Amino acid sequence: MTIKKFLEQGERYFLPHLSIDCVVFGFHDGHLKVLLLEWSDMNEWCLPGGFIQHTEHMDDAAVRIVNERTGLKNIYLRQFYAFGDPLRQRNKVKKQMPKGAKPNSWIMKRFITIGYWALVEYSKAVPIPDQFSSQCSWVNVTKIPALILDHNHIIEKALQSLRLSLNDYPVGKDLLSEKFTMPELQRLYETVLNKKLDRRNFQKQILSLGILERLKEKKKGGAHKSPFLYRFDKRKYQLALKQGLRASVG
Amino acid sequence: MTIKKFLEQGERYFLPHLSIDCVVFGFHDGHLKVLLLEWSDMNEWCLPGGFIQHTEHMDDAAVRIVNERTGLKNIYLRQFYAFGDPLRQRNKVKKQMPKGAKPNSWIMKRFITIGYWALVEYSKAVPIPDQFSSQCSWVNVTKIPALILDHNHIIEKALQSLRLSLNDYPVGKDLLSEKFTMPELQRLYETVLNKKLDRRNFQKQILSLGILERLKEKKKGGAHKSPFLYRFDKRKYQLALKQGLRASVG
Repeated sequence: MTIKKFLEQGERYFLPHLSIDCVVFGFHDGHLKVLLLEWSDMNEWCLPGGFIQHTEHMDDAAVRIVNERTGLKNIYLRQFYAFGDPLRQRNKVKKQMPKGAKPNSWIMKRFITIGYWALVEYSKAVPIPDQFSSQCSWVNVTKIPALILDHNHIIEKALQSLRLSLNDYPVGKDLLSEKFTMPELQRLYETVLNKKLDRRNFQKQILSLGILERLKEKKKGGAHKSPFLYRFDKRKYQLALKQGLRASVG
Repeated sequence: MTIKKFLEQGERYFLPHLSIDCVVFGFHDGHLKVLLLEWSDMNEWCLPGGFIQHTEHMDDAAVRIVNERTGLKNIYLRQFYAFGDPLRQRNKVKKQMPKGAKPNSWIMKRFITIGYWALVEYSKAVPIPDQFSSQCSWVNVTKIPALILDHNHIIEKALQSLRLSLNDYPVGKDLLSEKFTMPELQRLYETVLNKKLDRRNFQKQILSLGILERLKEKKKGGAHKSPFLYRFDKRKYQLALKQGLRASVG
């Protein structure tokens, strides 16, 4: 679809007043980043977002949007919140009108946006900007610039949801190597939570969830005592993703 | 608004394709119920739901909807999920057309619905049906009839969210007396989780959250040893509601 057609006739293809915004968090070696797009000609940064086709499932729309706008594939997205402030409309913030949009365009009206987040290993996920964007980049969560509309608030809410989800769902598959050490897993949790955790408590709690399998081999090559290697029990991990961590215990 | 005007001109007042459905859970004396409405003339049960006015905040719409449809006031609602299946439309399930609605009416189209839940003390919350409904009743969560559209699925998801939220947020204020015993609080958790909890583990975990205050007085009148009375520390309870339970610890 051309940008002109999108701006003038978008409502023929998409549900009006409804959008999707995706907060793709990237983890690598102790850093947590988020994927941002820069609108061409506007010098404005925003989340990768888009709209829902009339006969498309909303969750499918989220996957399609991330793929179309950033090039990333096979991203596991979790819906986390719907943002329903009536001031969420570009007409209220004139300077943020996309180039070529008229004031009465469908895209200038009020939008309720559904937020999704994902957590990926960013060194493996190389983003590509789409036709609307001049850049698509991983930005450190501590250094996010002022974004359009309420996108900064959406990222805050997504970060809260990601952190709370550590209580409820397992995290780590696809982010760590297949075999990993306890300190590597702890570092992932510390990065997401942005705080130090007690080594012994962490080990005790994470083992009590019953989703880890300790291997006989140890990690080699370090200067200190070789640490044990672990891997996720695939069946229990999947079960916990579906039912929550508490259900998987015992 | 008359029913005729609502069906014919609803889009003048409400955002199209968007609805809200509220799952109001009621707790009392070991029972967990949910508030359901019966459509007049249709013999169909459903959740109390409604639509978002063009300039209204979505969260305000949810509060208004519960009030208008059930008479309940001051309900603390938590948004939990948006349901985006393209089959969510009354045109796909002909028998569920509201009396007086035409096939091309706005209300027959696809709706994405935003789910909210609340937990109240049902013996204190006496519901009143609105003009669209012949009944508004508390129904035991284990005895819910077949509801319209995907409303049974919405209740299941709300129940999952309510149960997970026990890990993240405090529960009990406005559901128990101001002063309560540890067994009374445990019974509330057991009712919501629908399982027995170990007395000692429960007490240890709930005290570790730091939101309870043990009083000097004990409960009188029982046959056995008088149990201690507790109450919530208001400041810490409110903080935990905002920031999550983990943040309130320490």
